Amino acid sequence: MQKLREECGVFGVFSKNTYEIARSVYYGLFALQHRGQESCGIVVNDRGVYSYYRDAGVVNDVFSAEVLNNLGVGNIAIGHVRYGKQGEKGRINAQPIVVNHIKGNLALANNGSLTNYLELREKLEMQGLVFHSSGDAEIIANIITRERIHTKSIEEAINCAMNIIKGAYSLVVMSATKLVAARDANGIRPLCYGKTEDGDYVVASESCALDSVGARYIRDIAPGEIIIFDVNGVRSILDHCNNCSSSLCLFEYIYFARPDSVMDGVSVHEARIRAGEFLSTELPVDADIIVGVPDSGIDAAIGYSRSSKIPYGVGLIKNKYIGRAFLAPKQSMRETQVKIKLNPVSSTVKDKKIILIDDSIVRGTTSKKIVKLLREAGAKEIHMRLASPPFLHPCYYGTDIASRDCLIACKYSIDEIAKIIGVDTLAYLSVENAIRITGNGNNFCSACFTGQYPTAICEQNRKKKYDYKIGEK
Amino acid sequence: MQKLREECGVFGVFSKNTYEIARSVYYGLFALQHRGQESCGIVVNDRGVYSYYRDAGVVNDVFSAEVLNNLGVGNIAIGHVRYGKQGEKGRINAQPIVVNHIKGNLALANNGSLTNYLELREKLEMQGLVFHSSGDAEIIANIITRERIHTKSIEEAINCAMNIIKGAYSLVVMSATKLVAARDANGIRPLCYGKTEDGDYVVASESCALDSVGARYIRDIAPGEIIIFDVNGVRSILDHCNNCSSSLCLFEYIYFARPDSVMDGVSVHEARIRAGEFLSTELPVDADIIVGVPDSGIDAAIGYSRSSKIPYGVGLIKNKYIGRAFLAPKQSMRETQVKIKLNPVSSTVKDKKIILIDDSIVRGTTSKKIVKLLREAGAKEIHMRLASPPFLHPCYYGTDIASRDCLIACKYSIDEIAKIIGVDTLAYLSVENAIRITGNGNNFCSACFTGQYPTAICEQNRKKKYDYKIGEK
Amino acid sequence: MQKLREECGVFGVFSKNTYEIARSVYYGLFALQHRGQESCGIVVNDRGVYSYYRDAGVVNDVFSAEVLNNLGVGNIAIGHVRYGKQGEKGRINAQPIVVNHIKGNLALANNGSLTNYLELREKLEMQGLVFHSSGDAEIIANIITRERIHTKSIEEAINCAMNIIKGAYSLVVMSATKLVAARDANGIRPLCYGKTEDGDYVVASESCALDSVGARYIRDIAPGEIIIFDVNGVRSILDHCNNCSSSLCLFEYIYFARPDSVMDGVSVHEARIRAGEFLSTELPVDADIIVGVPDSGIDAAIGYSRSSKIPYGVGLIKNKYIGRAFLAPKQSMRETQVKIKLNPVSSTVKDKKIILIDDSIVRGTTSKKIVKLLREAGAKEIHMRLASPPFLHPCYYGTDIASRDCLIACKYSIDEIAKIIGVDTLAYLSVENAIRITGNGNNFCSACFTGQYPTAICEQNRKKKYDYKIGEK
Amino acid sequence: MQKLREECGVFGVFSKNTYEIARSVYYGLFALQHRGQESCGIVVNDRGVYSYYRDAGVVNDVFSAEVLNNLGVGNIAIGHVRYGKQGEKGRINAQPIVVNHIKGNLALANNGSLTNYLELREKLEMQGLVFHSSGDAEIIANIITRERIHTKSIEEAINCAMNIIKGAYSLVVMSATKLVAARDANGIRPLCYGKTEDGDYVVASESCALDSVGARYIRDIAPGEIIIFDVNGVRSILDHCNNCSSSLCLFEYIYFARPDSVMDGVSVHEARIRAGEFLSTELPVDADIIVGVPDSGIDAAIGYSRSSKIPYGVGLIKNKYIGRAFLAPKQSMRETQVKIKLNPVSSTVKDKKIILIDDSIVRGTTSKKIVKLLREAGAKEIHMRLASPPFLHPCYYGTDIASRDCLIACKYSIDEIAKIIGVDTLAYLSVENAIRITGNGNNFCSACFTGQYPTAICEQNRKKKYDYKIGEK
Repeated sequence: MQKLREECGVFGVFSKNTYEIARSVYYGLFALQHRGQESCGIVVNDRGVYSYYRDAGVVNDVFSAEVLNNLGVGNIAIGHVRYGKQGEKGRINAQPIVVNHIKGNLALANNGSLTNYLELREKLEMQGLVFHSSGDAEIIANIITRERIHTKSIEEAINCAMNIIKGAYSLVVMSATKLVAARDANGIRPLCYGKTEDGDYVVASESCALDSVGARYIRDIAPGEIIIFDVNGVRSILDHCNNCSSSLCLFEYIYFARPDSVMDGVSVHEARIRAGEFLSTELPVDADIIVGVPDSGIDAAIGYSRSSKIPYGVGLIKNKYIGRAFLAPKQSMRETQVKIKLNPVSSTVKDKKIILIDDSIVRGTTSKKIVKLLREAGAKEIHMRLASPPFLHPCYYGTDIASRDCLIACKYSIDEIAKIIGVDTLAYLSVENAIRITGNGNNFCSACFTGQYPTAICEQNRKKKYDYKIGEK
Repeated sequence: MQKLREECGVFGVFSKNTYEIARSVYYGLFALQHRGQESCGIVVNDRGVYSYYRDAGVVNDVFSAEVLNNLGVGNIAIGHVRYGKQGEKGRINAQPIVVNHIKGNLALANNGSLTNYLELREKLEMQGLVFHSSGDAEIIANIITRERIHTKSIEEAINCAMNIIKGAYSLVVMSATKLVAARDANGIRPLCYGKTEDGDYVVASESCALDSVGARYIRDIAPGEIIIFDVNGVRSILDHCNNCSSSLCLFEYIYFARPDSVMDGVSVHEARIRAGEFLSTELPVDADIIVGVPDSGIDAAIGYSRSSKIPYGVGLIKNKYIGRAFLAPKQSMRETQVKIKLNPVSSTVKDKKIILIDDSIVRGTTSKKIVKLLREAGAKEIHMRLASPPFLHPCYYGTDIASRDCLIACKYSIDEIAKIIGVDTLAYLSVENAIRITGNGNNFCSACFTGQYPTAICEQNRKKKYDYKIGEK
Repeated sequence: MQKLREECGVFGVFSKNTYEIARSVYYGLFALQHRGQESCGIVVNDRGVYSYYRDAGVVNDVFSAEVLNNLGVGNIAIGHVRYGKQGEKGRINAQPIVVNHIKGNLALANNGSLTNYLELREKLEMQGLVFHSSGDAEIIANIITRERIHTKSIEEAINCAMNIIKGAYSLVVMSATKLVAARDANGIRPLCYGKTEDGDYVVASESCALDSVGARYIRDIAPGEIIIFDVNGVRSILDHCNNCSSSLCLFEYIYFARPDSVMDGVSVHEARIRAGEFLSTELPVDADIIVGVPDSGIDAAIGYSRSSKIPYGVGLIKNKYIGRAFLAPKQSMRETQVKIKLNPVSSTVKDKKIILIDDSIVRGTTSKKIVKLLREAGAKEIHMRLASPPFLHPCYYGTDIASRDCLIACKYSIDEIAKIIGVDTLAYLSVENAIRITGNGNNFCSACFTGQYPTAICEQNRKKKYDYKIGEK
Repeated sequence: MQKLREECGVFGVFSKNTYEIARSVYYGLFALQHRGQESCGIVVNDRGVYSYYRDAGVVNDVFSAEVLNNLGVGNIAIGHVRYGKQGEKGRINAQPIVVNHIKGNLALANNGSLTNYLELREKLEMQGLVFHSSGDAEIIANIITRERIHTKSIEEAINCAMNIIKGAYSLVVMSATKLVAARDANGIRPLCYGKTEDGDYVVASESCALDSVGARYIRDIAPGEIIIFDVNGVRSILDHCNNCSSSLCLFEYIYFARPDSVMDGVSVHEARIRAGEFLSTELPVDADIIVGVPDSGIDAAIGYSRSSKIPYGVGLIKNKYIGRAFLAPKQSMRETQVKIKLNPVSSTVKDKKIILIDDSIVRGTTSKKIVKLLREAGAKEIHMRLASPPFLHPCYYGTDIASRDCLIACKYSIDEIAKIIGVDTLAYLSVENAIRITGNGNNFCSACFTGQYPTAICEQNRKKKYDYKIGEK
């Protein structure tokens, strides 16, 4: 079940040829749709002329055939899908952002969150700048443009801007002739690139989006790296890579990313299988069947089953048609309304001892409902296992865990949580095991579990950000 | 992968209370969406006044909050989702059908297909009737109404009409004061009913739709049964049940139904698990991993894995966001376009011997693409196993297998098919095993595999039906 | 100001060539939009295959470029615009109606209202027919089809049907190869035809629609005439013309029709000018300026000015952008809300004695508001003159004056009405002058003024009709 | 007929009470719709929190009930309708513009055009500013915000900004607590204000918009005046009024404004009547009837008729339903396609000597078509008279006459134009008479006729502006 929300997915293409390039971005964004369903946008570059369209809604609703046709042809294009945090919703915050400037027009899409946003914004405003949105992308676009005035190229301007902006960012930037990608020095948000058989270069938040346009994954952009794609090929600026130790968000592996994606060379699916295998050792219990909560608990459940030799079963079916929620018309229906999205398979769970696997618990509300469903369907025992450690700390790098208040693990002990959600036993994956799930010895950002943030944080700054009181409806 | 199309899902509610009953139908249709995505409709009965809305599109697109509100309140309501066969597409064929008549207005929704459609239609037309659509429902509604003139009740009229109409039908009919359901004497299409805690009665094509409104499954409507729900409770007319031997479509278990549904007391999921278990005996082969094609091959793959002890793995990821298809902008992308919907998980399949499980093969086109994807992702061997026997005969009872021409199994041997789709070995579930998957000893319609039809068929009639040349756009 | 509502406009084209004929109908319906804004539809005939689209809304909203494209090509097509009476609203009553039948498919559009509707419907229902709408067109299509079974041609069937249906109708009927038009024996609703330079024939409710597709007006269809357009040219059946005395609705000239239309050889504009001229003699009064209420009072105001030599002025401006009505957000605005649609020109009316010309008064509500506006803008005296006699009797031939209850002239004397609406004096055009406005000596239906109906009427029948309790939303 | 396009209409409301204020703006914009149909927007201020919505389209299409509801309540609000010049189309250029800044958020709507746009933009960009649109409003909002940093109030900031911006502008600006309006020192574009009975203040481009919300017209904002509405009432800053000589655009009276508006105390309708009266002396000719081209030639035709004693007649009918243009499906229709919008009244024009009055001729294309229509309808002689002098010079103040190339009067003599459009004689209103039509002795901007511009112009600047190559689709 979806609990946490990632804010963004970015995508970019550089081709030597002019074609209906918006369609490539459409497919890329479609593959990244799980990273943000609130708004999306595409900018097409036809020899320096930018055509763009952004709106609230999912890719499929926003980009009709007519809208795609209107975007015309081009040889460079970027796109973005977004989940908006509180105070940053709606069309006005849709990306990519496009800015006009005498030194060259610029389009920019970002995944991440700046930790010095407020400080930068106040400073820029006092220098006479105005802002149209409450998002990081506009700040970054302004800073790059200001650096552009005294630099010789867009990449040099980005390089200078990276001295100013702090926090998590994975950028895709388009100038009249170049596609540039850049990642913060800790590499908190993912970003990779690949190449098609035609020689086109593709940049994306996840490798599954490369697959969707037939591009072969080459490698992740390194933490701190700036990579430039133009008619001369590919080159990198590594000035910000000197001290960089990778701190990729561990939760990308656990929940955010699509299982068919590869990050830092490690399969997300494989990492989740491994999480399930480790999890089977946390609080072993005898059971008849392993049931994963679709979609995010499935892989760990398979891993748990493999390791424990307890059979894997399908105990919950998710309705694949995604719909609006209407209030149930009768009180009696409200209780069971979760069944519209998730329905138990009685034959699997009836009279069974179940080990129920999910990726994590945030508030506990959804887990409680699922457990109730399974009990009503006849489950004899329910032992819940979570493929991640407890959430104890807010995230400042682009997810929506903004405060401790809504985190169940901050307020209750594990035993209390087990009682609240109604399971017989409850266990989390240990932090020690969590950081081993990729098996490649890399470091990760596991701040939400441990409180150890890879960058300096000014919590005050972040909180204030949500107070920008303006909103295009 | 979706290959065959079921034409319809029906749903009905009878409540003692007046409320925003369209929302209950909305939820029911949402749960039945997999049975038809081309058009849908809801009719609400408020003390004899019918309000209705029907249109092309999926439930979620057709029924906006505004449209639902406009349907007002009522205590009886029926709904329908439809996949239109050739010649029966568009808004004009959307159901439920509503007819006005001096003896009482009538709303009717049907799942199935009449085998004497053309004969009946010609006869009625020569008696001065006109038709507005090319669907069975309009014929049935006309025949019931004509019988209504000389009968004392709607259920009596339906009882008489069942002497006239032949073939497969699962009807939900609404009069001013009653909800009536009826199933053909062979019970080819499913139909069940349940009851909510409030005492409301719910009829649906599948039990998953009962779940979605909090109703408890009671039982399937018997083949030939007419069941009436009104203020006096529930009663049945069994005149057409005398000689009825159940012939439920076997393919409902294999592919059409949702796995969380129960039909004739048997879990669809369980039947598919069993199909996989039987399948593991058909042409045993050594392999590293069992991979199911999502979503319809997953259950059988789990069953195969359980029986064979070969590990189950996730080798293909389906994009859960359902989108329009645009033509890929470059030739190089067209080859790999299937990846937008289905992407291989390299870490699962690379250098592995795979047993690939799907429910069936119709034309073979999709299977060929999937096999290619897996080969490119590094699969060493691919052994395909199908959880149903080969399709050799057209279906005349409401699915879209209209002729032998498009069935790959009619034109090629199994070895040839294996070569065409590119697998190392290929095996189907035997007919003997297929009819055992429910484990309840019932008879089934397995005409598409065996050619033994449970009713008389006039193929000429059926063919002509598609020639009605009229279409609301 | 709009007060009465005409229910329909019909349009048809017969061409020897196949082309995007829906666009011709689109233009024709656009010219007839003033005759009905609630729903519209087009049916295109491509060698016997009918494509059609109907929906609630105005022509411009319903027929997008995409919808028109989907209608494809053809050589015959008909269309309809509709204002729905109470109980006959929404998409389900949109025309043209299309019926399938073994003797030939049929599309039909009608302007008018049957006086024996209920009698016919009950009879047909008892013979086993069902109805899907509450409109006359469905009855007529059924009767024609039943006659079609034992006749040799569509025109013969229409000829027989005209013995059965009573009241007012102007029909456009399309078969696989013919376009047929027919008008009731009294010619109550208008219908004319013309020819383009290419030799295409065009039938329309008003000649302004012929103009819009470049067709030259030839003549009105005669009362009782059936006219057939096919590859052999034009021919008529005059069996129903024997006793016909023309009784064209006088209110077509006064209000319904567009001023640029010609009916029975008489210019609508010219008739309105003449109405104004006659009106100037009814209750002469000294004044500074003649002001017409836009749009329907303008022509008579010009005629009044010409005859009286009092200057014509523009005293009220109508907003040409047609908008939805939202409730005014403040009480203070509600009073003056009529200004959004109609605003006084102070410089014209301030300190002036005004003769205010409108076509008629139905309820008096709008007139009262207009008079208040003019008073507030400084008018010294307001003398209202109406270009038609008082409405005293309901109309049974297709307008929405269904009962005497809503007619102000049935309840109050002229002096009382003058007080109610706040004018200094009030006068109506006399019946004697009204029937002279066309100057061609024809008879008219002036039943709404005189109570002398040209056909037999069964009021009971008509009233019941509105009770059909069914409605597609 | 519409020929020239005004770019904008502005509207603002200040209330002491919080209510659904967006609806007031909706009505105001609806009344100003004739000033711009390409895009529109509304910003609502609820105690400093701005909610807004802007999109391409007319008021009625953009502002659905749902969108208006989403805008919530507030006590200050502004709105804008826009016709976009070349290079400034689409949603991205829709106004009001809203900018966030530490010294206070700002919303701004403008009618006019800056003459030093390019100079200002280059300067600001070199100081590190980026731009998101190609419109004047964004420049002005940036300059006001920069002045805001070192000033004490929004009105002081506007006062400083008016030293920097040059050209034509009529601004409506909203801060958290104030509604401010300002007009350039020459008063080229109109702007007035009024008060409702409740004490709310309303600012609008034209007085007809005051009427639509029940506000009484008080006076025009003076050239150079800044007027502030807040809880303390109304006050003005007159620093820029010292040398101001009014130069209101003469074409506002001739064509742009609605006839029911009052500008600088003079009725637009009255000015047009007077233009017609003067026109009757320009090249007197004997004729049977005066015909005005709807809607803009009607008033002058009435004036001409009054002065010449030749009868006024309705010779052309305009379809009041505003529709999309589709290509006519047949060549024969294309010729007469203008009839869809404008149809001749044969009875008025047949065998008549006509004096045809229009406001002006730009390219001559439409006039040519109208003359052809009237000839085909039987007009014997057509003498065209124009209620304005010939256009000889481009406008730099916010209309779309961007170059001499498209002006027929720059390329041909009056006699040649008469031949091109096919009239017997042609005459324009003289400049001497044109500047007398208001009768109040004011000065006007008549640069398009005389080439005498009220401000300095840098044509090079203006031309370049259209080259900004960026466009949100």
